[in-house]
Amino acid sequence: MEGFRVSTPLTVRFSETDAQGIVHNAVYLVWFEIARIEYIARLPGGYKGMVDRGIDVTTVEAHARYRAACRFDDDLVLHVRVGEVRGPRFRFDYAVERSGEVVAEGWTVHACVDATTLRPMRMPDDLRATIDAIERS
Amino acid sequence: MEGFRVSTPLTVRFSETDAQGIVHNAVYLVWFEIARIEYIARLPGGYKGMVDRGIDVTTVEAHARYRAACRFDDDLVLHVRVGEVRGPRFRFDYAVERSGEVVAEGWTVHACVDATTLRPMRMPDDLRATIDAIERS
Amino acid sequence: MEGFRVSTPLTVRFSETDAQGIVHNAVYLVWFEIARIEYIARLPGGYKGMVDRGIDVTTVEAHARYRAACRFDDDLVLHVRVGEVRGPRFRFDYAVERSGEVVAEGWTVHACVDATTLRPMRMPDDLRATIDAIERS
Amino acid sequence: MEGFRVSTPLTVRFSETDAQGIVHNAVYLVWFEIARIEYIARLPGGYKGMVDRGIDVTTVEAHARYRAACRFDDDLVLHVRVGEVRGPRFRFDYAVERSGEVVAEGWTVHACVDATTLRPMRMPDDLRATIDAIERS
Repeated sequence: MEGFRVSTPLTVRFSETDAQGIVHNAVYLVWFEIARIEYIARLPGGYKGMVDRGIDVTTVEAHARYRAACRFDDDLVLHVRVGEVRGPRFRFDYAVERSGEVVAEGWTVHACVDATTLRPMRMPDDLRATIDAIERS
Repeated sequence: MEGFRVSTPLTVRFSETDAQGIVHNAVYLVWFEIARIEYIARLPGGYKGMVDRGIDVTTVEAHARYRAACRFDDDLVLHVRVGEVRGPRFRFDYAVERSGEVVAEGWTVHACVDATTLRPMRMPDDLRATIDAIERS
Repeated sequence: MEGFRVSTPLTVRFSETDAQGIVHNAVYLVWFEIARIEYIARLPGGYKGMVDRGIDVTTVEAHARYRAACRFDDDLVLHVRVGEVRGPRFRFDYAVERSGEVVAEGWTVHACVDATTLRPMRMPDDLRATIDAIERS
Repeated sequence: MEGFRVSTPLTVRFSETDAQGIVHNAVYLVWFEIARIEYIARLPGGYKGMVDRGIDVTTVEAHARYRAACRFDDDLVLHVRVGEVRGPRFRFDYAVERSGEVVAEGWTVHACVDATTLRPMRMPDDLRATIDAIERS
């Protein structure tokens, strides 16, 4: 999808549906996380590499916009990009696609924190450089 | 809590935590729904009454802001109000409180739809009147 | 309910239903845990007290038998008892009741482990004595 | 894995972990369902085909045995087979494998029901024949 360099496929689980017959609204934040982890896996060492370096990431804000209902067994593609990095904070943007249609979109804001003190810390330059390289690719 | 007329208590379940030792970010949307249903229960006939009248409600947008981490067994109070009603759309606002501190807040936008055609429909006047009465109480 | 000394009420969440319109089968294990934690809360210091003493509890086995479907907003009562304690292992039994009818039942087997070495350890005598006192009450 | 003809890969989601740092015990029933649906997808018309024919499937019983803890990002393989078919009832067996080790196993019992009357019905002969063919392959 235009504007997104990283994506990952996903098939809707039955347990993700609710009694309206559609995917429950909270599940999209689970999917956003799956996309985010896929992105972070492309950074040096992946998520575990960040934790090993003493960096942890907290979620500060989350937003989802539901355009069309998703149903059991739908084949989706989760698209993700880093939208902005500013000091300790950075934003991921997401689009959920089904057969070429965007059925949902959203964003989350995160903060890098020192894994022991939990204090906000700037994103290390090499991570930021890798993100820039991914987004410009 | 000031500005909120409806609230419901909640104790954090162990299954709601994740490997960071805190409540997973998607769970807050589940809590918002619990608060919303508590609110709707005060409308004539409650949620089932709305469905019986041929009205269903879809979720259009959701937003959460995480201020402080919640942990297993935390005693919380979910606060909820209707922030705005405009045609078929209405917004719920939420605050999650722990010992007087707001640990999270958020909002969701919903649309009233005809339960059979799924077309958007204005919120019926009596529902809106009940909401106004709750919010002015 | 006969044979159960500890119980806790629960209202079915909308997010616990699936596209069959009923509660998803995995959710019952979440409910069993809620009942189990309610039981453990009656032991000296509760769950956190056990962890503070260096005892952790792992789940070894889980079983659920679904007798009648549960639906959104159903008012249930979760009943729980300790069925057996043998060395490091102990079993919880559960019954899920709706208006006097048992709609589900199950059991889980757990092991006490040393929280640092994760080695199995016998349940401390005072915990066992409290359990005996609860079950004989 | 010996004795299993159908399997599907799975990577542990972060949201599937709990504050013990491991996968929550209820999640295994979600995984069993994913494996079961993968199996049913090999039957004529898949799950939707069954529903279209007026057959629905209810879950009667579920059992899980946890051998070793699973963690975030673990790469697993879910193995599934039909263990027994008797009248309306049939049993699925599961094994969860990580790098050649069985970390969990379990089984579920289901009943075929008429989708409109919800009465138990024998599994149709062609479904049963397909299952036999899969298991003998």
